[in-house]
Amino acid sequence: METEEHCNRFAFSEIGIVSSPHSEAGRTPIQPCFAEEYEGKVTVFPEFEEGLKDIEGFSHIYLIYAFHMAGQEKLIVKPFLEDVEHGIFATRAPCRPNPLGISIVRLLRRERNVLTVSGVDILDGTPLLDIKPYTAMFDCIHGTVNGWQDRVDKRTAHERGTRKNNGKQS
Amino acid sequence: METEEHCNRFAFSEIGIVSSPHSEAGRTPIQPCFAEEYEGKVTVFPEFEEGLKDIEGFSHIYLIYAFHMAGQEKLIVKPFLEDVEHGIFATRAPCRPNPLGISIVRLLRRERNVLTVSGVDILDGTPLLDIKPYTAMFDCIHGTVNGWQDRVDKRTAHERGTRKNNGKQS
Repeated sequence: METEEHCNRFAFSEIGIVSSPHSEAGRTPIQPCFAEEYEGKVTVFPEFEEGLKDIEGFSHIYLIYAFHMAGQEKLIVKPFLEDVEHGIFATRAPCRPNPLGISIVRLLRRERNVLTVSGVDILDGTPLLDIKPYTAMFDCIHGTVNGWQDRVDKRTAHERGTRKNNGKQS
Repeated sequence: METEEHCNRFAFSEIGIVSSPHSEAGRTPIQPCFAEEYEGKVTVFPEFEEGLKDIEGFSHIYLIYAFHMAGQEKLIVKPFLEDVEHGIFATRAPCRPNPLGISIVRLLRRERNVLTVSGVDILDGTPLLDIKPYTAMFDCIHGTVNGWQDRVDKRTAHERGTRKNNGKQS
């Protein structure tokens, strides 16, 4: 990370790359819970391989990445799951002021610097910025209130979240 | 975000700032679950206030921020909870190749562009990069296997995680 003085900007470097079956943004599932059948590879550049020691003990990991294909920043969006406008920070839409994405994927195996994961909702070729372990103690919070998402019924969420009916032109 | 060609670097701008009672890294709780009694303020710069619309419906939010006081990058670390070395990506330690932090905090209230939150494990003055809603559907994953963390007993985790016995010099 390099701080650029006077404008409070922070520069981060790609530490690896995500390979996935998703080559088209409009047909990519919107979250890992709608993408369970999709496997992908996370290739961490060899110079960072040592940092993966013991990661194979975790069943789930956070991938943090750049939404490198995100469109123009918007502050108000209609999320994928509902036709109502919300603030960008109340959604996971990619066109954020800082297009940072997080996905919690299942870690199937590690071979040296390559992780095989499932639940991949990430475009092929996405630049990886960080990996963190998902842990029950820190991350699984019970009894949350989930804003507008609590209004979306499960069937609608699944239909829209998997995006299988999207991108009919292709 | 600005892509810097040839070196695959991505620049992100601060969108706000986190104010917290924690002024010393060595005494800052290591995760929100060890910091329930600490409240903080997240001030989103006014130009992004519109992006907060409807966030107040969520009980918990992700804060994504720069570990601006992180030390030199390390690939192997002893995490706070255990005296055993692990790869940096199998821990939440700040001295990561890209020092990005995530915390899931409880959202108590919003007043215009200022969020009051609890469970603050973040240093005062930390530059905020993004906010995302925490949702049960996407983020609360049951039955995970939690690597080396599953070996840490609850009492040790609490004693070390709150860091109340740390920083005796102050």
